[in-house]
Amino acid sequence: MAVYGGVEAGGTKFVCAIGSSPDSLKAETTFATTTPEETINRTITFFQQHGQREPLSGVGVGSFGPVDLNSKSPKFGYITATPKPGWADTELLGRISRALRVPVAFDTDVNAAALGEAKWGAAKGLETFVYLTVGTGIGGGGMVNGQLLHGLLHPEMGHLRVPHDFNKDPYRGACPFHGDCLEGLAAGPAFLGRWGRHAEELSPNHPAWQMEAHYLALGLTNLIYTLSPQRIILGGGVMQHDELFPMIRQNVQELLNKYLQVPAIVKQIDQYIVPTVLGNRAGVLGAIALAERVVG
Amino acid sequence: MAVYGGVEAGGTKFVCAIGSSPDSLKAETTFATTTPEETINRTITFFQQHGQREPLSGVGVGSFGPVDLNSKSPKFGYITATPKPGWADTELLGRISRALRVPVAFDTDVNAAALGEAKWGAAKGLETFVYLTVGTGIGGGGMVNGQLLHGLLHPEMGHLRVPHDFNKDPYRGACPFHGDCLEGLAAGPAFLGRWGRHAEELSPNHPAWQMEAHYLALGLTNLIYTLSPQRIILGGGVMQHDELFPMIRQNVQELLNKYLQVPAIVKQIDQYIVPTVLGNRAGVLGAIALAERVVG
Repeated sequence: MAVYGGVEAGGTKFVCAIGSSPDSLKAETTFATTTPEETINRTITFFQQHGQREPLSGVGVGSFGPVDLNSKSPKFGYITATPKPGWADTELLGRISRALRVPVAFDTDVNAAALGEAKWGAAKGLETFVYLTVGTGIGGGGMVNGQLLHGLLHPEMGHLRVPHDFNKDPYRGACPFHGDCLEGLAAGPAFLGRWGRHAEELSPNHPAWQMEAHYLALGLTNLIYTLSPQRIILGGGVMQHDELFPMIRQNVQELLNKYLQVPAIVKQIDQYIVPTVLGNRAGVLGAIALAERVVG
Repeated sequence: MAVYGGVEAGGTKFVCAIGSSPDSLKAETTFATTTPEETINRTITFFQQHGQREPLSGVGVGSFGPVDLNSKSPKFGYITATPKPGWADTELLGRISRALRVPVAFDTDVNAAALGEAKWGAAKGLETFVYLTVGTGIGGGGMVNGQLLHGLLHPEMGHLRVPHDFNKDPYRGACPFHGDCLEGLAAGPAFLGRWGRHAEELSPNHPAWQMEAHYLALGLTNLIYTLSPQRIILGGGVMQHDELFPMIRQNVQELLNKYLQVPAIVKQIDQYIVPTVLGNRAGVLGAIALAERVVG
């Protein structure tokens, strides 16, 4: 059986794993994202050491962005205009494939996670769905008609503009580019900025959660109106607060106001807006799926 | 050469045509949308009369919605929960195919128009793009990776939620479901509701146009963040006001605030947000393309 490497290249940490499915991982490692030089070398070394015992058929990389996904571009496989110090214009795919001499597949971290959920998780059997992560930032990926969303660049669902009533919520938003876009209003830093405390320090009955559910529901309705997904999967640190799910579902139904008369939304919303099944391993497992999909 | 029938089934009028391309139409007719019985019979009769001289290889229908596009559903090819009197739960595809005894392809009016633009218009050669019509309502369709957007139901891009500053614009919006969604704030009826006059009665320097450009730009940025289209094509009656285009482009760039560093948006936005090439024939021509795509 072919064995693949997977890399979840995150802005905070890199997760690398070797295997072919969630239940058959042969090795896994996690380390902090430091300089590109050090971090990429550590990634390569991890795979080289394993590769001496068992050859890898390919490697998949799901990376924080923005990334260049256009295979005809000279910067294909690069992290491009990121504000993360030292990482702008960093070649990722090419360095890994030259060092390991195997085919390397490349996509966004959220598309990798979406693919992982499609293969082993909450999106099994679906053709059109969204995976949204809500943590220190908000990012989204997904599939349409069984293919990952790419387009001109790649989706940046965190930056959706949503209604913001300054009378009810005077917080101006944390996004350095847009202030009160969805990420600016509803990602981790907005909790600290608005309430003076981190999300994990707030009790389940704190009003922060109703407000969070409201903004996320606004974002989800916009995704529903645009992509008409068969399901929406929510992951990331903020979504570990389980009490958010019923609140988000109710807010989405109220916002749609019976406009979309489909049973999945009207009657079975518990199965329509769901938590990730793969959890914080969605990214690295999805990267393995990415390798298999492109190489296998 | 195969000859196809195309139907743009609109809420106000039906347009039917016969041919295989914009330059080779053999017949075309337009009539008001009255009762389903009368309107569908008129459609069938038009094709039957031509069919006596030359057999049609198939017919494509692009319909106002919501419609059922799920080929496994018992209501496939129906107009479903429309508020239009008499038209809820109306079988369209089945009636036409049984009467004409040819294969019939079926999609939304906006997806048909999108397909027409992809084949003969502003989206030639593109894989991922959006077609948005702004008239008495706002509707959107498009393609992702070369396939029309469907999903759970179909997109309903007119109902996107966008920021609305009640201090600058106290108008509450015209959408019977959502009030101040994009359609509620920026479709034709909002001009009459907000300014007391129809869009076509307003001079080009009326403040209505800057406001219109602002709302449409908010909607377009949300579509860009979600789908990452290679191009956005704008059609419909409101978009016949050419002065809107430069205003919309500038608003989109300001809203994105250099977050997406892609030349298509930063440097060539004139070719990124563009008018329809097929104009008000996009729907019926797209319906012919739909027939060809499915049958041909």
